[in-house]
Amino acid sequence: MTFKLHHQLAADTAPVCDLPFSTVLLMNDARFPWLILVPRQTDVREIADLGASERGTLMEEIALVSNVLREVAPCDKLNVAALGNVVPQLHVHVVARVEGDAAWPNPVWGSGQAKPYDDNWKNGLIGAIRTRLGMD
Amino acid sequence: MTFKLHHQLAADTAPVCDLPFSTVLLMNDARFPWLILVPRQTDVREIADLGASERGTLMEEIALVSNVLREVAPCDKLNVAALGNVVPQLHVHVVARVEGDAAWPNPVWGSGQAKPYDDNWKNGLIGAIRTRLGMD
Repeated sequence: MTFKLHHQLAADTAPVCDLPFSTVLLMNDARFPWLILVPRQTDVREIADLGASERGTLMEEIALVSNVLREVAPCDKLNVAALGNVVPQLHVHVVARVEGDAAWPNPVWGSGQAKPYDDNWKNGLIGAIRTRLGMD
Repeated sequence: MTFKLHHQLAADTAPVCDLPFSTVLLMNDARFPWLILVPRQTDVREIADLGASERGTLMEEIALVSNVLREVAPCDKLNVAALGNVVPQLHVHVVARVEGDAAWPNPVWGSGQAKPYDDNWKNGLIGAIRTRLGMD
């Protein structure tokens, strides 16, 4: 079966790039610099259902994306989470949090309404992330 | 410097056991079967600040604890998250979520008031988890 990005993730994000294991997306919410990693696996819902080697790769992609995100969006804390209560396709959030941001200190999920990016800002941010990931 | 569990984590949880890398705690909230892994590292706040080998070990301990938790508390979804907005010591939540639980489909953090366990229930749950982790 071919991997297909869940329609809700596609609707809420802009594509950034494909890492070897995961597709990287930018959440279209200018309130929080927020990336999502989606392992290109079919029918996997839990991290615990990946193989050990796949989990190791995912963990390193989480660390890579975390480091790039905090370079382009200096922050007080990263939030890393695989929830999936709403969207069943396995995906990992990496969110740069700043003290006093729109949800601080609570989680970002379900907190108020997303504020879509201005296109120039979004494209600039995606470009900066791609460059640091060695994609350009 | 010797590892010391953050006082807030100590206050909110009961000890389960020590895995090779992380200490496992049970959140004292009977609304959600909820374990917390605390890597016994000093002054580490982000997963990305661990070494690659440490991250690999942490990932496998997350998978181990996830599998044990869903055995003792069958669930519809696991939520795995390293947030740390409030408690700076690196810790990873592993929460068994059931459709229609007290926070569903929202995250558990900041959702209503914790409902402390009855002692017998808590000790039984901890015993079942320890047994499956090979600790008894």
